[in-house]
Amino acid sequence: MEDLYTIKWHNGKVRILDQRQLPNDLVLLEISDHRGIVNAINNMSIRGAPAIGIAAAFGVVLSVWSAGDTDRPTFLEKANTAIKELKETRPTAKNLFWALEKMRLVLTRNLNRPLGEIKKALLFEAQRILDDDIKRCENIGKYGATLLPDRAFVLTHCNAGALATGGYGTALGVIRAAVAAGKKIKVYANETRPLWQGARLTSFELLEDDIDVTLIVDSAAGAVMREGKINIVLVGADRIASNGDTANKIGTYSLAVLAKKHQIPFYVAAPLSTCDFDLPNGSSIPIEERDADEIRRIDSMLIAPEDVKVYNPAFDVTPNEFIDAIITERGIARPPFKTTLSELKNKT
Amino acid sequence: MEDLYTIKWHNGKVRILDQRQLPNDLVLLEISDHRGIVNAINNMSIRGAPAIGIAAAFGVVLSVWSAGDTDRPTFLEKANTAIKELKETRPTAKNLFWALEKMRLVLTRNLNRPLGEIKKALLFEAQRILDDDIKRCENIGKYGATLLPDRAFVLTHCNAGALATGGYGTALGVIRAAVAAGKKIKVYANETRPLWQGARLTSFELLEDDIDVTLIVDSAAGAVMREGKINIVLVGADRIASNGDTANKIGTYSLAVLAKKHQIPFYVAAPLSTCDFDLPNGSSIPIEERDADEIRRIDSMLIAPEDVKVYNPAFDVTPNEFIDAIITERGIARPPFKTTLSELKNKT
Repeated sequence: MEDLYTIKWHNGKVRILDQRQLPNDLVLLEISDHRGIVNAINNMSIRGAPAIGIAAAFGVVLSVWSAGDTDRPTFLEKANTAIKELKETRPTAKNLFWALEKMRLVLTRNLNRPLGEIKKALLFEAQRILDDDIKRCENIGKYGATLLPDRAFVLTHCNAGALATGGYGTALGVIRAAVAAGKKIKVYANETRPLWQGARLTSFELLEDDIDVTLIVDSAAGAVMREGKINIVLVGADRIASNGDTANKIGTYSLAVLAKKHQIPFYVAAPLSTCDFDLPNGSSIPIEERDADEIRRIDSMLIAPEDVKVYNPAFDVTPNEFIDAIITERGIARPPFKTTLSELKNKT
Repeated sequence: MEDLYTIKWHNGKVRILDQRQLPNDLVLLEISDHRGIVNAINNMSIRGAPAIGIAAAFGVVLSVWSAGDTDRPTFLEKANTAIKELKETRPTAKNLFWALEKMRLVLTRNLNRPLGEIKKALLFEAQRILDDDIKRCENIGKYGATLLPDRAFVLTHCNAGALATGGYGTALGVIRAAVAAGKKIKVYANETRPLWQGARLTSFELLEDDIDVTLIVDSAAGAVMREGKINIVLVGADRIASNGDTANKIGTYSLAVLAKKHQIPFYVAAPLSTCDFDLPNGSSIPIEERDADEIRRIDSMLIAPEDVKVYNPAFDVTPNEFIDAIITERGIARPPFKTTLSELKNKT
């Protein structure tokens, strides 16, 4: 994955690797206004909780980048509109709101400075969110790798990899770090319906890095566990409540139940920016429902009756009792997460 | 589903509704030799354990139908070759072997009769297997409907419907019978990767019969149960060992674990021809592994790296401890299945 990147600022524009076209085509989108970022997040050209936050931060930069240097009210309106519209893209991932709040703070703290300087401060912050994300992932990897046995058979879901983050990845960062540490890792990747992040992205990333990966349909996870092929389940997260309840890609909860039944450790890897310390538990995490045609169609081809009802929640919530550890950039939280997550948050 | 049929003998040929093309196109395949049946079973134009058995029976008829009426050795060779080749199509569904054994018996019992009469006897037997299957399904429906509450929220997997049988269906037969008895039934259908029998077939069948159906991705089953949307899980079966261990479409085992966790009754509906009384338990049920490209591609379109490894078992085995009842055409078996299934088998 060294030559590839998820998102980058380039000459006043944002370049995004279009994840909808992977693994078949490597297409870079060049986006010059915040609406382009809104679309890229909505249509999942870029996805993954940390990556969405980074994209949104750059979206705020784009919204004012070509604004004049004198009209302050228009400048601020552009920035505020962008923040509002970016906030409305996807409701579940905490990192989106976390990153936009960081951008809003930069804006308010620099309110009276020359507009050109505010632009630079916003770009600096967005770039820092991106750079820090990579460092966070590397630290998650460092801590997480200690949890994997020397011969690990890891089941993962969706894509919590370089493509879901600024780079390196959360769950896949742990796998990368374990491989780098000389551990022998075999990965089973759930294909992850309806949008195949496992088939399209996780398989692609791991093959690029020469890591042993086998693709399965999501519903085979139980059988694969029962056959004794798995000794770790490792996933990312979109939002973690203060008690450790974790929203992640639909299907994660089923995996957690299956892991518990088979006495397989179930680990979540995520930066603390994914944690929502305002929520006491997972019951109030907003769960995005996406379009029925994501399930009824493959591109334009119908694979179900056109008029069949569909229930398409993009995420589910795994209660903390199913989670053995949450791996963050500041260390590993173990139950009770209410205490341990908050300790990590306050750790300096 | 009244105007449609899964398989039918028509003027010396076999007509099969091509299930690969549903729900988009209603295409009848007209097959005139047993190799055509072998292909239709292999490529899953016809699938579902009972339907495979019926198709195989007609395949034996086709193998001799245009044979001359005098050359007995050639006639028998044709029939035996057909039985052998049909047996090798798919390893898991018991009904295939059960139906072919019935055909073999007709052949041996009539060995010395005029060849024209043997042909008729074979056709009579194949047609009886088909007709009986519909009756069996209706009886399964009658017994099974008593298990559903007046307001049932049923999760089903794959297609255990009219299309998987001679008609009416096993799991979907139970739903049809419950609806006919005035119960209010809402069905959640797992789409059933990799071949979408739930999206393509179960949705289609239930919509045709005006039964309330909502399609979900397979991995959403856990979340849907946790949300309290399901009070029955009901599936078909491909092979049931004498102790009740049940092989069925990949993903069934995951559902069974999830159902137990949520204290939701888990029922299997299948004719006794699906039961393999020679097997003490499910560990020796042969599990078919199918082509990697079923998962890597949609038609010709790649959705995963071309060279990614794939593990594609078509079935899994659900241990009997997860099964609350097995609904057969002779009544409902409850644990211990070793006793109750064998009682039903011997019931006259």
